Amino acid sequence: MGDGGCAATNTKIEEGEGGYILEDVPHLNDYLHSLPTYPNPLQDNPAYSVVKQYFVDVDDTVAQKIVVHKNGDRGIHFRRAGPRQKVYFKSDEVHACIVTCGGLCPGLNTVIREIVCGLHYMYGVSKIIGIDGGYMGFYSKNTITLTPKVVNDIHKRGGTVLGTSRGGHDTSKIVDSIQDRGINQVYVIGGDGTQKGAAVIYEEVRRRGLKVSVAGIPKTIDNDIPVIDRSFGFDTAVEEAQRAINAAHVEAESTENGIGVVKLMGRYSGFIAMYATLASRDVDCCLIPESPFFLEGKGGLFQFIRKRLKENGHMVIVIAEGAGQDLLTESMQSMGQQDASGNKQLQDVGFWISHRIKDHFAKEHNMAITLKYIDPTYMIRAIPSNASDNVYCTLLAHSAVHGAMAGYTGFTCGPVNGRHSYIPFNRITEKQNKVVITDRMWARLLSSTNQPSFL
Amino acid sequence: MGDGGCAATNTKIEEGEGGYILEDVPHLNDYLHSLPTYPNPLQDNPAYSVVKQYFVDVDDTVAQKIVVHKNGDRGIHFRRAGPRQKVYFKSDEVHACIVTCGGLCPGLNTVIREIVCGLHYMYGVSKIIGIDGGYMGFYSKNTITLTPKVVNDIHKRGGTVLGTSRGGHDTSKIVDSIQDRGINQVYVIGGDGTQKGAAVIYEEVRRRGLKVSVAGIPKTIDNDIPVIDRSFGFDTAVEEAQRAINAAHVEAESTENGIGVVKLMGRYSGFIAMYATLASRDVDCCLIPESPFFLEGKGGLFQFIRKRLKENGHMVIVIAEGAGQDLLTESMQSMGQQDASGNKQLQDVGFWISHRIKDHFAKEHNMAITLKYIDPTYMIRAIPSNASDNVYCTLLAHSAVHGAMAGYTGFTCGPVNGRHSYIPFNRITEKQNKVVITDRMWARLLSSTNQPSFL
Amino acid sequence: MGDGGCAATNTKIEEGEGGYILEDVPHLNDYLHSLPTYPNPLQDNPAYSVVKQYFVDVDDTVAQKIVVHKNGDRGIHFRRAGPRQKVYFKSDEVHACIVTCGGLCPGLNTVIREIVCGLHYMYGVSKIIGIDGGYMGFYSKNTITLTPKVVNDIHKRGGTVLGTSRGGHDTSKIVDSIQDRGINQVYVIGGDGTQKGAAVIYEEVRRRGLKVSVAGIPKTIDNDIPVIDRSFGFDTAVEEAQRAINAAHVEAESTENGIGVVKLMGRYSGFIAMYATLASRDVDCCLIPESPFFLEGKGGLFQFIRKRLKENGHMVIVIAEGAGQDLLTESMQSMGQQDASGNKQLQDVGFWISHRIKDHFAKEHNMAITLKYIDPTYMIRAIPSNASDNVYCTLLAHSAVHGAMAGYTGFTCGPVNGRHSYIPFNRITEKQNKVVITDRMWARLLSSTNQPSFL
Amino acid sequence: MGDGGCAATNTKIEEGEGGYILEDVPHLNDYLHSLPTYPNPLQDNPAYSVVKQYFVDVDDTVAQKIVVHKNGDRGIHFRRAGPRQKVYFKSDEVHACIVTCGGLCPGLNTVIREIVCGLHYMYGVSKIIGIDGGYMGFYSKNTITLTPKVVNDIHKRGGTVLGTSRGGHDTSKIVDSIQDRGINQVYVIGGDGTQKGAAVIYEEVRRRGLKVSVAGIPKTIDNDIPVIDRSFGFDTAVEEAQRAINAAHVEAESTENGIGVVKLMGRYSGFIAMYATLASRDVDCCLIPESPFFLEGKGGLFQFIRKRLKENGHMVIVIAEGAGQDLLTESMQSMGQQDASGNKQLQDVGFWISHRIKDHFAKEHNMAITLKYIDPTYMIRAIPSNASDNVYCTLLAHSAVHGAMAGYTGFTCGPVNGRHSYIPFNRITEKQNKVVITDRMWARLLSSTNQPSFL
Repeated sequence: MGDGGCAATNTKIEEGEGGYILEDVPHLNDYLHSLPTYPNPLQDNPAYSVVKQYFVDVDDTVAQKIVVHKNGDRGIHFRRAGPRQKVYFKSDEVHACIVTCGGLCPGLNTVIREIVCGLHYMYGVSKIIGIDGGYMGFYSKNTITLTPKVVNDIHKRGGTVLGTSRGGHDTSKIVDSIQDRGINQVYVIGGDGTQKGAAVIYEEVRRRGLKVSVAGIPKTIDNDIPVIDRSFGFDTAVEEAQRAINAAHVEAESTENGIGVVKLMGRYSGFIAMYATLASRDVDCCLIPESPFFLEGKGGLFQFIRKRLKENGHMVIVIAEGAGQDLLTESMQSMGQQDASGNKQLQDVGFWISHRIKDHFAKEHNMAITLKYIDPTYMIRAIPSNASDNVYCTLLAHSAVHGAMAGYTGFTCGPVNGRHSYIPFNRITEKQNKVVITDRMWARLLSSTNQPSFL
Repeated sequence: MGDGGCAATNTKIEEGEGGYILEDVPHLNDYLHSLPTYPNPLQDNPAYSVVKQYFVDVDDTVAQKIVVHKNGDRGIHFRRAGPRQKVYFKSDEVHACIVTCGGLCPGLNTVIREIVCGLHYMYGVSKIIGIDGGYMGFYSKNTITLTPKVVNDIHKRGGTVLGTSRGGHDTSKIVDSIQDRGINQVYVIGGDGTQKGAAVIYEEVRRRGLKVSVAGIPKTIDNDIPVIDRSFGFDTAVEEAQRAINAAHVEAESTENGIGVVKLMGRYSGFIAMYATLASRDVDCCLIPESPFFLEGKGGLFQFIRKRLKENGHMVIVIAEGAGQDLLTESMQSMGQQDASGNKQLQDVGFWISHRIKDHFAKEHNMAITLKYIDPTYMIRAIPSNASDNVYCTLLAHSAVHGAMAGYTGFTCGPVNGRHSYIPFNRITEKQNKVVITDRMWARLLSSTNQPSFL
Repeated sequence: MGDGGCAATNTKIEEGEGGYILEDVPHLNDYLHSLPTYPNPLQDNPAYSVVKQYFVDVDDTVAQKIVVHKNGDRGIHFRRAGPRQKVYFKSDEVHACIVTCGGLCPGLNTVIREIVCGLHYMYGVSKIIGIDGGYMGFYSKNTITLTPKVVNDIHKRGGTVLGTSRGGHDTSKIVDSIQDRGINQVYVIGGDGTQKGAAVIYEEVRRRGLKVSVAGIPKTIDNDIPVIDRSFGFDTAVEEAQRAINAAHVEAESTENGIGVVKLMGRYSGFIAMYATLASRDVDCCLIPESPFFLEGKGGLFQFIRKRLKENGHMVIVIAEGAGQDLLTESMQSMGQQDASGNKQLQDVGFWISHRIKDHFAKEHNMAITLKYIDPTYMIRAIPSNASDNVYCTLLAHSAVHGAMAGYTGFTCGPVNGRHSYIPFNRITEKQNKVVITDRMWARLLSSTNQPSFL
Repeated sequence: MGDGGCAATNTKIEEGEGGYILEDVPHLNDYLHSLPTYPNPLQDNPAYSVVKQYFVDVDDTVAQKIVVHKNGDRGIHFRRAGPRQKVYFKSDEVHACIVTCGGLCPGLNTVIREIVCGLHYMYGVSKIIGIDGGYMGFYSKNTITLTPKVVNDIHKRGGTVLGTSRGGHDTSKIVDSIQDRGINQVYVIGGDGTQKGAAVIYEEVRRRGLKVSVAGIPKTIDNDIPVIDRSFGFDTAVEEAQRAINAAHVEAESTENGIGVVKLMGRYSGFIAMYATLASRDVDCCLIPESPFFLEGKGGLFQFIRKRLKENGHMVIVIAEGAGQDLLTESMQSMGQQDASGNKQLQDVGFWISHRIKDHFAKEHNMAITLKYIDPTYMIRAIPSNASDNVYCTLLAHSAVHGAMAGYTGFTCGPVNGRHSYIPFNRITEKQNKVVITDRMWARLLSSTNQPSFL
């Protein structure tokens, strides 16, 4: 996907005293010259006119490194998000579009709502359209007209009013569509792959020399996007996961040797599982992709289950969907793939591990257990965002809008140590945010569950 | 399980004018003679002393037939539940036990709490024990001491504090345990099979000539117990099912040709599915055990799905766990059982139908669908009862207590047309309550979903 | 409001064997002769065609008396609600209107939705309008067009999409408006006063000889309408009241001599307070309009509070808004009305009693208390109806629609012993449903709280 | 309260390069010499042994300044919280006590639970007591034994299991009690005044030369504590406030010229009101203590209400409890205090403003309005903390425990830019955190509500 080229044009490094580094984002100015600028219309907005220093100082940057030593390096910084004194688009010149891609995540509708309301009320923009059903909607569907009235109540609903899909990214068709329709601001809400797609769109837009700002808004319910503090919807997801854990706990407690297994989202990173476990206090074992585990023998999961059942009579296991993939693959292979449909179901790690635990205690130990498996995934993804995520989504959407209006492009945004920042695409797509199991948060979890470290 | 004998001793029929029939319940008096009686201690209870006609008239009966014609038969009646002027146990003579059997159901803890509090506060009883872990706890475990203090907050929790299990019914061991411990009031909370077990315990108790009241409290989240208006926990379950349906609706709406499938409880009867569908208004098709359906061809499910997706772009299907068992069995057989574990999973009708739908649209129609399957069963079963079920459980528990104190035995209880009544065991175990698909409620559902009748 | 005339024309009494009485409702036939009838369009509806005996037998009546004696009188009956073989309106002839009056109540939107959907899908009616803002909307505002699409999601929102107001009933203006607009089915959703208004509209319609069916749908969150089992929204209100009681309990428990006071709805009847207390189990004293109480001296509230605080260290009091009005009036008078606004606030019985309790313990006993007063009224009224009320509202709305289509008029409807029935207006407006404090439900409450009977 | 002395002994300033400042906290070492140290028992804890660099580097500090310029000053830093290589207490030497003071706040029980579990599971401490009912419990009540078993489920309940009270701080009695009981770790959970009290306890402990660590845990539902990112319970409160705002919105929408007024917590700072408004999107006007407003005349509140009602037909006003105190005082004075009780009620700003609005529209404009006032304060305070606050409270409690074990004293703790830190008492008690109305967050709010700036 042209990462090399990406890196080349995205990387704008500036250095300062004491080891200060600024990783800046591209700007329309970088490849379009003599662009006219206009005073920010917020200057005449009564809501903002009373605010001192409302506009972000051109030199404001946000430090990524917070825990520092007296004489240590200052480290990496990002450009602070927020409104600028000068904008690069006249209000009636803007033609914005919004697209949502990938799986559902609480808060999608709030982000859509606030891009629309932000553009409309802060910058007087009236031409805003939604792309229907993800990237492929650019070239295969009609668009959806978005106004403050249309989006007024959508934040109270789960899902995305624009519809979504996976894949469908065809750079030239998309940029053709952008060009044909006269779109000059593109807001792309989606995960890792979607942001990589947005980076490529930016590259192509730049290659064609178009005055089009491409702004990414990172979406991942799993919180696996690096650099930013947390992703929107994550807080809501952890909250909603408590219901499933509570149910598993009640089921487990009500029978002898009762085991409740809850599968939570997290294909590559176990943040939801870890935070849901820490928040709940009813979990006896949390299994995540980052921490390999084994089933049999000394120090293994079966031994721990046996021990915990003997002590307490019941237990709750939380497993992230991406945990134990090595074991699962092995299992699949040993079964020889006789039955496609059955095996496919077994690829659900929660079902697989439930099956293995039941098998083990049926065959080897003569210890009658009762196991209940709960998969709340779709019940979590589909709820509306909670208050905290609503505020977060508002700031995120407004940051994107301020950035695009100010002429920044090829950027994504999000809070870094609590301050919204503009971040180069490559920094959030080059690797995934993962639970560091040699870090203190995971140690906290191990300490709270007393589960084995499986090492 | 001795149904013949059961029927013989349980049946106490009395007839009256205009086709009036009373189906009465057994009484200790039926086989123990010259039992002393005592004034009901409620007479001196300040809460009750002010109430006029507090005690139920010895002749009060509850009519089962409500819709009547001017000159029609009056039909079957049951003995009205409630406190009697005379009781057959002295307060300090009572030694009560409570047992919960079978699957979880919202309200179990409220029923336990209110038997304890009812016996204690209304009748001055202090010897109450809980049997641990269902029927088998009678002969394989220590008992749990129950006091108002111990049960004070349990109604705010799901599950059952006594623990539960399936099976384990061994009549003679159980009645031995009752006799050994000097228990003289047995409260049995459980479903169909459990109530049959209670009937057999009553038979054996009677055969041995023991002064022991056996009171059943019918439990079934599925509402499949006949005669009574509804079973406890059902209302809570229907309410909680809305979450899953909402999630399925949001998932379906957010993608092109999105289908949300929700499996709800109901092995033999589709009441939860039917009421959850009627309450939600977001369901396009509701499949229940009572209404056979077929998949392929004209008037089949696949055709309906295709039609609805074309009209609306998305749909929600609710399926009761016992629906379509004939189709499922057929599928199993045709697959030849190569793979035990895979097939076992396929026995989950929700998974099976999801699989069939995906297969169908993948192979035959070239219509790309996105299907999400949600199974909220354990998340529903494990929640605490809502306010309405709490009040219901209180009345139910008190009815049982009043009945046992008044010397009735071999009875179950519950509301008949809104009035709590004592009902012979055989009336609630001889058949299951089912959705009558030639009745108006099912027609209402068909009308609200516009689904095919599959006839 | 012409009760005499009302009674005269409303009363259609029929008698049968064994003391059977049928209190029937008026029919267009009573004053319009030779009206043509048409086959019910449901006959050709696939959802209904498979149903045996779908149409209500012309002789079906619902018994009000359930607890009966072997040879006792059969008592009062009502006409069973439901679809009839013959209807008195052609589908394209119907012009229906819906109006909501009085305070908010959970379920209003569901009733509106289901009248619209019922008329549309069952009877093919397409001309349905909403009257804006209560009775006065008939003659002072434009109407609102109602279609299944418009009302599709309204049941998920609290309040009423039609708007509401109190009063504004001007019979001749309203009937002029009905006549002018060609409306021939009037659905009136509202409380006691509103139903009286509907009765008068029916009288006037009849006087003018119009072919207009007037159907009332009784609304009262307080459950104070007689004859029917319960009113819609009541179940939701009792459920939601638990939050406030829980909060009061937590506040009270966390301080020494903590008292939590919760005011609940119920101007003339204490059903919400009573059921919320029975459902919660955390309430120490429940005060309702039907049960007078006193504050000072032996057996009074202050003495009870003192006692309970000494025993438990904290307590929760639930008070219905109409409780203790005599004491409050007395207080007002003794204060001499110096300050209108202050006194007005004192007319809130929750505030008044909190004030009196604080005063009492400050002055007389030197017992430092901490009292927190919670008034959740508007937070309860404004929520959407729960699943149980949603199903209830659906049946209620459909009953009204079936009745109007079948030519009945001047009727209200609701469940009598679980079966929906048509009830003459005067039977539900002539008196209020009240908690009978010499009945067993109130005794149950007294027994569960151990509060004094204040007698 | 000896702030001078406080400041003198609390202030430990260290400076570094580039304008780096460290504001350090006291340590037992500062006044007790040659204290023995022990290896941190976490070293042998399997949960922690696998963690690299688990112990916080002795030089780690947390930067308060995040938005920086390339060559700007580095600013103030705090000592990073977390476990240290060496501890100053042996496990069996520790005798810890916990006290909660002031009003309820979601999360109190989680903090208590996690201090107990942290001390027990991480440091092997078994002597932990709770002080009953706030500061005064030190010298007037028996203590409460705290074990992991006792606190196991308390985080699922609102309130504080230790009880709480206001005031009652008597330094010498408290320190006498600490000394008498042999307590050597004091955990004080409470607001501004409580933390000041803890600072004085620390001073006295130091004066007496006791080896007692005094750790403060800042509590304020209002989020008005400076330095730290947010206070525990705040997130839960903002979430729960949505219910009240939703209800107000529904009530307002359902009547002509409907106004919903919601009072939220915030005596001196409007954070809850501001965030609840930003999260909800249904609020038309948000009034907070930091932003003075006026009622009458051009640009005043009444004019805005009139305008908004004309445009939309309804509106929602959120008011923080401390807003408009100047206006309220004025009103009180002009009324001449005739009626104590009435006026007292008027001191509730929500009631007062509702009254003024109703009065205004009744008298001056002949515009009939319907106003509903909702005060959800106690329903918000009393709920259990949400998942996000549960995790927060866990980290906070563990930070305090690590700090006390490591010999730090006279400190409070909390997250600074997302990293938990030890903060000198004076930094969090010397002033209140307030909404800065010339800052961007308030501008965002003004922009989202379009309310006047009242300037």
